[in-house]
Formats: sequence, structure tokens, C-alpha cells
Amino acid sequence: MTDHKDITGNIRDWDRIIIGIDPGTNIMGYGILGIKARKPSLIALGVIRLSKFESHYMRLHRIYDRVLGLVEQYLPDEMAIEAPFFGKNVQSMLKLGRAQGVAMAAALARQVPITEYEPRKIKQAITGSGAASKEQVKELLRRQLGIDKDNLVDIELDATDALGAALCHFYESSRPIKVSGSGSWKDFIAKNPDRVKGL
Amino acid sequence: MTDHKDITGNIRDWDRIIIGIDPGTNIMGYGILGIKARKPSLIALGVIRLSKFESHYMRLHRIYDRVLGLVEQYLPDEMAIEAPFFGKNVQSMLKLGRAQGVAMAAALARQVPITEYEPRKIKQAITGSGAASKEQVKELLRRQLGIDKDNLVDIELDATDALGAALCHFYESSRPIKVSGSGSWKDFIAKNPDRVKGL
Repeated sequence: MTDHKDITGNIRDWDRIIIGIDPGTNIMGYGILGIKARKPSLIALGVIRLSKFESHYMRLHRIYDRVLGLVEQYLPDEMAIEAPFFGKNVQSMLKLGRAQGVAMAAALARQVPITEYEPRKIKQAITGSGAASKEQVKELLRRQLGIDKDNLVDIELDATDALGAALCHFYESSRPIKVSGSGSWKDFIAKNPDRVKGL
Repeated sequence: MTDHKDITGNIRDWDRIIIGIDPGTNIMGYGILGIKARKPSLIALGVIRLSKFESHYMRLHRIYDRVLGLVEQYLPDEMAIEAPFFGKNVQSMLKLGRAQGVAMAAALARQVPITEYEPRKIKQAITGSGAASKEQVKELLRRQLGIDKDNLVDIELDATDALGAALCHFYESSRPIKVSGSGSWKDFIAKNPDRVKGL
């Protein structure tokens, strides 16, 4: 398996860059999404392997260093993080919280705002079903971003999951502004004439 | 209550500096301990108040910035962190884990090694009882470090708890080297003649 794949090295061409993170204590996935003229494309994706480090602190240190390195290399405007709100037991949640915390600190250290999404929400956004498998997420991501099949064959599902968080954030942040108690553009225009061009 | 108290501003006089952290999601305590000729003294202590920030991210950002600021100001050689291993529920443990994670990241960012201690262990080290109250820890810390009563009257118990973590780490790291399967100095000397002076 490949630990890091850079599809496009030039980060100056994008209007907006989103880094997606799928934190774990054994393996952490990441995906960098570039947006140009409202069209999202894959910039890079990969994983940070942590199981080789015996010490919990070495793992946290590794996460911090690598995520900070990605933030400094790709200069993302936002971070989207996959964050389950419920876990099996308090011990594993404490460890997961620490892993999330150091990854978030790397973003906070460079003033990158963070949004978190539940795994179910990400699956729903990419596949239309909150119960989709990781393989389905990977395949639908591939089609939506127009990635060659060859480019994803040796990529871990943790990396595509992280890219899914970034794409979910792009979809969520690109939706029309919600007006409470109304779902139609007609109502929106009636209430906000100054926000609509050409009226 | 006072948020930060600096007892001695000069950090160049110390052989070793330990920062103790008591992480929480509403208030985070810290204490800086200086060691000179094997004698520990209080350098500074205080709290980081987080309840004024509504957003969880603002709180994490604040922890990261303030802990990094303390690390850069006092240049500690080590960090000791009070870390409960069990909590009431997975939600609160995830939040606590994140708070610990960003505080740890601030230490890791400056290559400061971290040791964690359970609250019970810290109370035991300072008072001789793992069931001691926070007030007892504060009073015994005051006596062991020779701090004037006036200097601690307006100090939060979270700050003295954090200082307790630092002092516990000093005691733990100053104990004679353990030789497995043996508890006596006689055995240690017999097995390690080259490590004992004057033999």
C-alpha cells in the first residue's frame, strides 16, 4: 500500500483547499481537496501509520508533526475532521480524543478553522446512504472527483474516508444559505432583496 | 481569585524546570516548579479559564495558545500531566481527551517530554493518602515548597493540583533506580558495582 500520493503538486491554482482528517490511534488518514470554479479535485491523500510506535506519546507526537507538515505544505483554508461521537468504552474514547486533539492543535497552530462530521453524515453526503461501506465511499468519491482507477488501487480506506470528510465539508459549505422557516428561493429573495443580484 | 501568580521571574537559576498541568474543559490549572540542588521551589502557577468561550474549538485553541505560551516563557524540561483514566461517560472522556491532546501538543511542539499521573497517585505522593482532599494537597504543597500562606490565598485548587502533578513527577523521577526483583540497595550495589561511587 502507498502511504502518500500526490496527484497534483501545484497548490497555487486553487480557489480553496480543504484538508480532511480521519483520526485513529493506529492509523490516521488524510485527504487534500482543491476547489477551482466550484469544482472539487483531489490534490493528495495518504495515511500516517502509528502502530510501529509503541509509546502513546510517540504516536501523538507523530500525528502532530505530520498533520502540521501537511498544513504547512498544502496551506489548507479549512480542516474537516471525521469524529465519531460515541465509542465502545471510556478508555478508547480518551485515546481517540487525544489523537483528535493533537491533530486539531496542528490546525489551530496555523489558524485553520475546523469542522467535524459524524461518519454517518459523511457516508450520507458521498453515497446517499449513512450505512454505506468504506469501499462504496471510495468508489463514489473516485467517480465524483474523476480520479483514475489506477490512482486509488493501493490507497488505504482510511485515506479515502478522510477525503470523504473533506468532500462532505465542501458539499455542506456550498449549500444555499438556509432561511429559518422557509425552504424556497422565492421566500429567500422576498426576505433578502439586497442579497440577490439583478433585482 | 488570581489567574496567574509569578513567585520568581528568573528562570535561569534552576537546574531543572517541570510544568504541571491539570487539564479540564472548563478550567485548566498549571504550576511551574524549579529545582536547584535537588530542592524544589514554586516558580509560578495559575489557571486558564475556558467557560467564557462558548465554542469547543475556541476552548481548545485557548488551551493550545496558553500552554504553548507557558512552555515558551518558562522553558520547562519536562511536563507532568494529571490524567484520570476513567470517567463517567464516553462523551466527557472524548472532550477531556481533546483538552489533554491539545495541551500535550503544545509540549510536543517544543520537544518537551510528557509523563502522566493518575489523580490518586499525585495525592499519595504529596499527602501520603490517595484519598486526600484538594485542600489537603494545597496545604501540604505549601509546606513542602515553603510557600508563604499569603501567596496561595487567592489561588484556585486547579492550579495547586497542577503544581502537585509537577511535584509528584519530581519525587517519582528522583527516586533511586529500581532493580527488578530486588528492593534493597545491597542487591543493587552487588549487581551494579560500577554505578556506585567510592567502591
